Amino acid sequence: MRVALLGGTGNLGKGLALRLATLGHEIVVGSRREEKAEAKAAEYRRIAGDASITGMKNEDAAEACDIAVLTIPWEHAIDTARDLKNILREKIVVSPLVPVSRGAKGFTYSSERSAAEIVAEVLESEKVVSALHTIPAARFANLDEKFDWDVPVCGDDDESKKVVMSLISEIDGLRPLDAGPLSNSRLVESLTPLILNIMRFNGMGELGIKFL
Amino acid sequence: MRVALLGGTGNLGKGLALRLATLGHEIVVGSRREEKAEAKAAEYRRIAGDASITGMKNEDAAEACDIAVLTIPWEHAIDTARDLKNILREKIVVSPLVPVSRGAKGFTYSSERSAAEIVAEVLESEKVVSALHTIPAARFANLDEKFDWDVPVCGDDDESKKVVMSLISEIDGLRPLDAGPLSNSRLVESLTPLILNIMRFNGMGELGIKFL
Repeated sequence: MRVALLGGTGNLGKGLALRLATLGHEIVVGSRREEKAEAKAAEYRRIAGDASITGMKNEDAAEACDIAVLTIPWEHAIDTARDLKNILREKIVVSPLVPVSRGAKGFTYSSERSAAEIVAEVLESEKVVSALHTIPAARFANLDEKFDWDVPVCGDDDESKKVVMSLISEIDGLRPLDAGPLSNSRLVESLTPLILNIMRFNGMGELGIKFL
Repeated sequence: MRVALLGGTGNLGKGLALRLATLGHEIVVGSRREEKAEAKAAEYRRIAGDASITGMKNEDAAEACDIAVLTIPWEHAIDTARDLKNILREKIVVSPLVPVSRGAKGFTYSSERSAAEIVAEVLESEKVVSALHTIPAARFANLDEKFDWDVPVCGDDDESKKVVMSLISEIDGLRPLDAGPLSNSRLVESLTPLILNIMRFNGMGELGIKFL
């Protein structure tokens, strides 16, 4: 599949680019700045070897893909979705977004409604799938890292959810789990501030999650 | 330690009674009806063998203990806490309570504030510790079951939290993890409806959680 990683210049984008490209998928790294996207794509190609990874402006990356992943900081994500609305409403859009704030007492979930529901509303699309919130990004971006993590997935369009779950299941060590419709996304997104608190209060490094 | 399991006649109470009693702790099973508490205690003694497990009315069980666990359905928990306020405010109180509703689209978290914060407010106590929400109760009550689960724990009083985490860590296969102050409890309690959704939408049985 052609997968666009919008704003995919961070660790989650890097991990997805490297791991999906080596599985044979065509990866488009998107950024607000074309040169940055191209530089990152070149960096990822050097690591992944013979793989299809190209860099484009976010708008062009969104046009070029079947699935777009919003690997964008929460603060900018809704503006980006709004700007690209006419393109993204036709695509499967994956939201790993989490509204999270850091306070004196720990990390909190900082939105009344889930990020994924807000994205779906802005795009006026049913093809928004909430997933990948709890992937420890730095570990995921390191191809030497071995892991066994679960990925809860929410979505209202069954076909879109199925496509995204299938894509996730191709990555060795990831198990997608259906967490129901998009209205359940807050429960999934809330895992991220919980994990950040556990890391902070126990002095632990990045952690993923497993249900067993 | 003397541990009271208030309303401890269900599977979570059974698992805690059996597993803590065989570690040498004195267990008091509480119920609204003394005869029911005594019958359950006798049943647990038959399984656990030579162990200190007695049954009492909730009020007497609360008096007799160092730590009280609210193994009570959410609908009755706050009334029970209010009734026993003068006793429980002097004790360490463990809240495994989760406000959860079942709807057409799945399970939802059904309170604005966390159960543990409401209990602390009702008791006017700082010694409330939020823990044990994600223990798969039927599996936990079966002594043949082997597991490896994490138990996120929240609390405002460091000493109370330390005592509860230490008690949990004595049980083979449970790892307590500090999730910060009680204000973070909603993030921990939200795990329960999430897990119930994952069980439902993937046709899976009871699941615990592990951070790795």
